[in-house]
Amino acid sequence: MHATPKASGPSSTGKLLYAQSGGVTAVINASAGAVIEACRKHGITAYAARNGILGALREDLIDTSKESPAAIRALAHTPGGAFGSCRVKLKSLDADRARYARLIEVFRAHDIRWFLYNGGNDSADTALKLSQLGKAAGYDIRCIGVPKTVDNDLAVTDCCPGFGSVAKYTAVSLRECALDVMSMMDTSTRVFVMEVMGRHAGWIAASAGLAGAGRDEAPHIILFPELAFDEAGFLARVRETVDRVGCCVIAASEGIRYADGRFVADAHAGTDAFGHTQLGGVAPALAGIVRAKLKLKTHWALPDYLQRSARHIASKTDLEQAQAVGRAAVAYALAGRNAVMPVIKRVSDAPYRWKIEMARLDQVANREKKLPRSFISKDGLHITAAARRYLSPLIRGEAPPPFGRDGMPSYVTLKNVPVRKCLPAFRD
Amino acid sequence: MHATPKASGPSSTGKLLYAQSGGVTAVINASAGAVIEACRKHGITAYAARNGILGALREDLIDTSKESPAAIRALAHTPGGAFGSCRVKLKSLDADRARYARLIEVFRAHDIRWFLYNGGNDSADTALKLSQLGKAAGYDIRCIGVPKTVDNDLAVTDCCPGFGSVAKYTAVSLRECALDVMSMMDTSTRVFVMEVMGRHAGWIAASAGLAGAGRDEAPHIILFPELAFDEAGFLARVRETVDRVGCCVIAASEGIRYADGRFVADAHAGTDAFGHTQLGGVAPALAGIVRAKLKLKTHWALPDYLQRSARHIASKTDLEQAQAVGRAAVAYALAGRNAVMPVIKRVSDAPYRWKIEMARLDQVANREKKLPRSFISKDGLHITAAARRYLSPLIRGEAPPPFGRDGMPSYVTLKNVPVRKCLPAFRD
Repeated sequence: MHATPKASGPSSTGKLLYAQSGGVTAVINASAGAVIEACRKHGITAYAARNGILGALREDLIDTSKESPAAIRALAHTPGGAFGSCRVKLKSLDADRARYARLIEVFRAHDIRWFLYNGGNDSADTALKLSQLGKAAGYDIRCIGVPKTVDNDLAVTDCCPGFGSVAKYTAVSLRECALDVMSMMDTSTRVFVMEVMGRHAGWIAASAGLAGAGRDEAPHIILFPELAFDEAGFLARVRETVDRVGCCVIAASEGIRYADGRFVADAHAGTDAFGHTQLGGVAPALAGIVRAKLKLKTHWALPDYLQRSARHIASKTDLEQAQAVGRAAVAYALAGRNAVMPVIKRVSDAPYRWKIEMARLDQVANREKKLPRSFISKDGLHITAAARRYLSPLIRGEAPPPFGRDGMPSYVTLKNVPVRKCLPAFRD
Repeated sequence: MHATPKASGPSSTGKLLYAQSGGVTAVINASAGAVIEACRKHGITAYAARNGILGALREDLIDTSKESPAAIRALAHTPGGAFGSCRVKLKSLDADRARYARLIEVFRAHDIRWFLYNGGNDSADTALKLSQLGKAAGYDIRCIGVPKTVDNDLAVTDCCPGFGSVAKYTAVSLRECALDVMSMMDTSTRVFVMEVMGRHAGWIAASAGLAGAGRDEAPHIILFPELAFDEAGFLARVRETVDRVGCCVIAASEGIRYADGRFVADAHAGTDAFGHTQLGGVAPALAGIVRAKLKLKTHWALPDYLQRSARHIASKTDLEQAQAVGRAAVAYALAGRNAVMPVIKRVSDAPYRWKIEMARLDQVANREKKLPRSFISKDGLHITAAARRYLSPLIRGEAPPPFGRDGMPSYVTLKNVPVRKCLPAFRD
């Protein structure tokens, strides 16, 4: 469509570029769909960058106007990243000057006037830097962040789109497993460990606590990355729980560490007979410790990507928030705002009410919100009532995808029609 | 209720005893609910044995008439084993004479005239032996099997209640993970391995194949326990798939072995710095091999009990079959049949139609139905069209549990009121 670079001034209508960044979630495409639908409503052409910021660097852009309304609607119930995402962090303006300059060049060539970056705190940082560079380069580009992360660790916002769904998956799966373990503990597994994501922050681990209430209900123990792992205390609690309840169900964050800083998973990584390092995890490490020290039969699960892509058990609250931040980001862009991000503000716990507010990207970029100590019980092994008040609304409501007659969810694959390139290739 | 043993002749109405055995499933309680509702309809008191055959041996019986109709209805959507299950296999009549005699004693003391054992091929064997012993002991007891196993390995029946739901979970989860991997493969994970249950039979592994169609759709490779694991061939296919598609998504049965018989999981079990054997799995072993040999970034998932307890994504077809075998078992019992089991007979593939037929327990006991070679592609790494025709109907239809306002499924916990014991304790 744009065979040659267009020199377009601020009077040009311009286009909006949307990109997905970092680990994908069950609802990041719902944000994408909301962005595109809002653009269509306002008569703005929305491009998407293939594989996040990489697509912008490579001038690998997708023309979303080639997709049918039904396909864009279907993004609301399709997990993964419909345009591709990436794990690439741009450095400072000085250190990565060539890449930032290239981005502005691509934006200029395609008359991109708005850039929406859907990601975590790294992405907020990239969007912030781009907004500063646009000013310096005399190119009018508005950069807006769209929050997303299963880790729920973004600053300012009350919660992060993507988290509510992984929290619901975790709580539901753990409750189901607990029913399984409890029905067989007399002659089979006594201790069950479920490993969850969240290397630095224990939000997902905490959400497992919603599976039960009271000390006799699973999970009986939750292990958080915010606290040092006390092996002796852990084993004592496992023993006591098995003696009292008959079994012990544990939710453990992948990121728990010993007091000396070593990750528990790394400390117990083994070497097989072929000399390969075993790709371990916290769950097998903990199961191994329990088996060796307490001589109890263990089982463990490590759902990995299943947890963050489980659109079939997404939270309706999460879905609605993912769509709301997408719509708000477009509204901010078209209102001429720059270097901002829509965030979720909690108005009340009961009834749960929330609204969208605007935050500055520099308040979000590169910060990390850990689980507050007040959300962790005094003994360090469970969540508090305050945590429940915070977490509970986020998993409420069901929003299952449509299923086909074949019994499978009807997830959409977009056509992803490329925009014709008009610049020389970028040597990165 | 029964403070002293009752001498009851064949003219007595008698009671029905239901018990759950072996690994639980997402729908075993649906069979239980159907059994109890059928008993209520016919005015028969239904007891349940706590923890399967152990409860019968220990005279640890539950009076299901103390449960409300709503609680019994809720069994249809509650995973796990509501009365407890067990992993106990009775030996031959000669080797386990005291236990069989005790069972008859307990049946006699509580006027149990029908015994329904809900399990796999071991349970069919136990029920068969009990039916024989009843005749020999002059006690009129009718023993009926109720099929159940996620492994789908029972003889005679076209499929096993419990399997359709784990198959649906597996296919849906794998499709979701594949969308995740494909959106990030450019800068992140290239090879993803999902380990599934089925130590001896590859039915669950095969069901992963329903996640996609065609060689470029995930799963790209399926590894079955029926065939020897050819590491070189596997690595070549992974390499070729990554080169062609950009990533490679693998479903692997926990039970795959090298040609010399060693389990792949065991062969790669490591030892950590503390001297503990690492509790490995096939997924980390395969990921380790790929990482070492192909230098590709890998991720792996091991859902373990999550897969067999995932009632939230159960197959409606599976649910209906689980209920149908429960109802049929009661009908057979009340019609005076002995040593039989209701099985599922497939009438047609398209449209999928099935009915319940009666099989003899001696045709089911101790047999194992593996995946036929005709269901595995010639290269041994995927499923055939015949497998798809067989598997596809089994995951059709959704039957989600009701969810509470808290966003969690409303699973029931029964009161499980014990029947008063009237016999001396059994020293096992």
